[in-house]
Amino acid sequence: MRLVGVADTTFARFDMAAAAIDELKKTGTGFKVVRRTVPGIKDLPVACKILLEEGMCDIVIALGMPGAQEIDRMCAHEASAGLIQVQLQTNKHIIEVFVHESEAESDKELAWLAERRAREHAVNAYDLLFRPERLERMAGTGQRQGFDDAGRLR
Amino acid sequence: MRLVGVADTTFARFDMAAAAIDELKKTGTGFKVVRRTVPGIKDLPVACKILLEEGMCDIVIALGMPGAQEIDRMCAHEASAGLIQVQLQTNKHIIEVFVHESEAESDKELAWLAERRAREHAVNAYDLLFRPERLERMAGTGQRQGFDDAGRLR
Amino acid sequence: MRLVGVADTTFARFDMAAAAIDELKKTGTGFKVVRRTVPGIKDLPVACKILLEEGMCDIVIALGMPGAQEIDRMCAHEASAGLIQVQLQTNKHIIEVFVHESEAESDKELAWLAERRAREHAVNAYDLLFRPERLERMAGTGQRQGFDDAGRLR
Amino acid sequence: MRLVGVADTTFARFDMAAAAIDELKKTGTGFKVVRRTVPGIKDLPVACKILLEEGMCDIVIALGMPGAQEIDRMCAHEASAGLIQVQLQTNKHIIEVFVHESEAESDKELAWLAERRAREHAVNAYDLLFRPERLERMAGTGQRQGFDDAGRLR
Amino acid sequence: MRLVGVADTTFARFDMAAAAIDELKKTGTGFKVVRRTVPGIKDLPVACKILLEEGMCDIVIALGMPGAQEIDRMCAHEASAGLIQVQLQTNKHIIEVFVHESEAESDKELAWLAERRAREHAVNAYDLLFRPERLERMAGTGQRQGFDDAGRLR
Repeated sequence: MRLVGVADTTFARFDMAAAAIDELKKTGTGFKVVRRTVPGIKDLPVACKILLEEGMCDIVIALGMPGAQEIDRMCAHEASAGLIQVQLQTNKHIIEVFVHESEAESDKELAWLAERRAREHAVNAYDLLFRPERLERMAGTGQRQGFDDAGRLR
Repeated sequence: MRLVGVADTTFARFDMAAAAIDELKKTGTGFKVVRRTVPGIKDLPVACKILLEEGMCDIVIALGMPGAQEIDRMCAHEASAGLIQVQLQTNKHIIEVFVHESEAESDKELAWLAERRAREHAVNAYDLLFRPERLERMAGTGQRQGFDDAGRLR
Repeated sequence: MRLVGVADTTFARFDMAAAAIDELKKTGTGFKVVRRTVPGIKDLPVACKILLEEGMCDIVIALGMPGAQEIDRMCAHEASAGLIQVQLQTNKHIIEVFVHESEAESDKELAWLAERRAREHAVNAYDLLFRPERLERMAGTGQRQGFDDAGRLR
Repeated sequence: MRLVGVADTTFARFDMAAAAIDELKKTGTGFKVVRRTVPGIKDLPVACKILLEEGMCDIVIALGMPGAQEIDRMCAHEASAGLIQVQLQTNKHIIEVFVHESEAESDKELAWLAERRAREHAVNAYDLLFRPERLERMAGTGQRQGFDDAGRLR
Repeated sequence: MRLVGVADTTFARFDMAAAAIDELKKTGTGFKVVRRTVPGIKDLPVACKILLEEGMCDIVIALGMPGAQEIDRMCAHEASAGLIQVQLQTNKHIIEVFVHESEAESDKELAWLAERRAREHAVNAYDLLFRPERLERMAGTGQRQGFDDAGRLR
């Protein structure tokens, strides 16, 4: 039995963790989910580290929804850099699922994007853990999570 | 008995630490507060690390008030990156409470914002330590500290 | 027998890893290739670390194709910083092969650039591993990977 | 007897270290000064680390004077990030005293600012080491080093 | 006998390493030079770490010539941050000698600048290793490497 950590925030305006967990369960079996919710995205790195080290998770999905201001982009950068550090300290993957408010033109589109990206990245996390050969088959194919795939260059 | 560290600066123009400590005490019991004041926000990371490692704190609230210039934003970024590193070195949370001078239009509004954000984040620190399930119930609900909550996307 | 790691992404729109592996094999012998594909460039640092530490690779070629938006440049920066950290943690080289979508004016040129850069950097990786004296002979000669060499200053 | 490290540069256009050392001696006793001069501010982090670890210093004052170009701001950022890392590796404070050429409108004002900031931060270093309760009493009072204090918000 | 590492790139358009080595030899004795050439500046951090740890060098001179595009400035930033990390991991100095293509108005001036900066920084490296008191005497005197010294503020 593998453990999949799911870390999310109270700052986000959509329950991306619920979508990710639902998609994980639709995709396969052989794992349990451990969830940890923190206030904002800058709290995610240590939350993920605790899930990986103390919670014994094999991989973590880290979900957040940065605001549309310049300060929010800097927060997202700091959080991302932290998430990479955690991976290098644990030799385990963290799938970062950030949806920037500025990516959508309406609340409705933002909710749609948040759900779809969370679900597609949940499959990525599943693949990294259980079927890495599936990712290798998709190498260089322009996959995107949320909006349409970009596809291969022709 | 748990220990809550409170790190703040002489640079800030409002005693956010006093507000945070007052709110912590209103919120619950079972903890003692250890305070450490440093000159500026770039001195906060090591102050927090000392509180967590030598002061045996279980969590730290780090309060600061960056100025409105571009150089101040860079200082805040450096301090934030340092605070994340400390969390990854200790596996403990630091709740960063930064109020940028540029967030308010008057001194009065800035003081109001500093107090309210300090108080709301003090509750977040309390929740992380004593009732993490409360944060999970608020996952994805658009919580903000200071100004009004953004709320769930509809 | 040396081991050369090749890490790439499903996000990229060209199979740069295939080009790099082909070029490695044309360049020399005495090595085996170990490949690992991840979703995006921010997943590359830990993938490279796993290849170097758990996969026992002697060097890794990390290939990615950042998008043309500002957020993509920030992702590339975070990934690059992570790749440097991995090298410092392992004392082994990672040859970063990033092709930014904004570097080319058409899909066709982008594909051409991705292939050529991947192939030229594959030779760099081979040189670092098997014939470092070849790099020293080219010191200060304005080598570029992909577009034309800049050449020595005159 | 405590040891106070003073690290400075040949790049700076004012002997800020001399001012800091003079002010330290006016402020109190019970310490010796160890000085180390390096070419530029990017050489300061390791100089401070050597002072703290090999020189057994209890605290370091790091003085520099970044130029007015964009590249200088980036150098200052890299140096600052390095200084924070050193503090986290040693659990000791480094008081960063940077005066940007762009902060003053004439050479005369720049020299005045460099001296005053060095002196005021020397007192901060003394306080951190010998009388931290003095800093706590000034918490949230808008202290500045060099130009006038901003004061408390009203 | 001390060991001075010299790390440079095939990307640079001038053999700065040759100039630095020549100047070192003109400046004094008591050391041997160990050279390592890599493709680009982002490969310098690990090359320097290998020179310091495996090559037993006492100091390293790292030479590079970043291009004039925004992406080149980011590469230089990543390389610089990495070089600082290496110094903090080894407690030894690395003298970074970067010449940005944008610093000169012609190829001829760029070559002149690259040679002069390499030579002047070679003396800095020599001073750090053999006569640190010489640097202390120049503290706060506005030294520059390449273009004219800025001099003391008056």
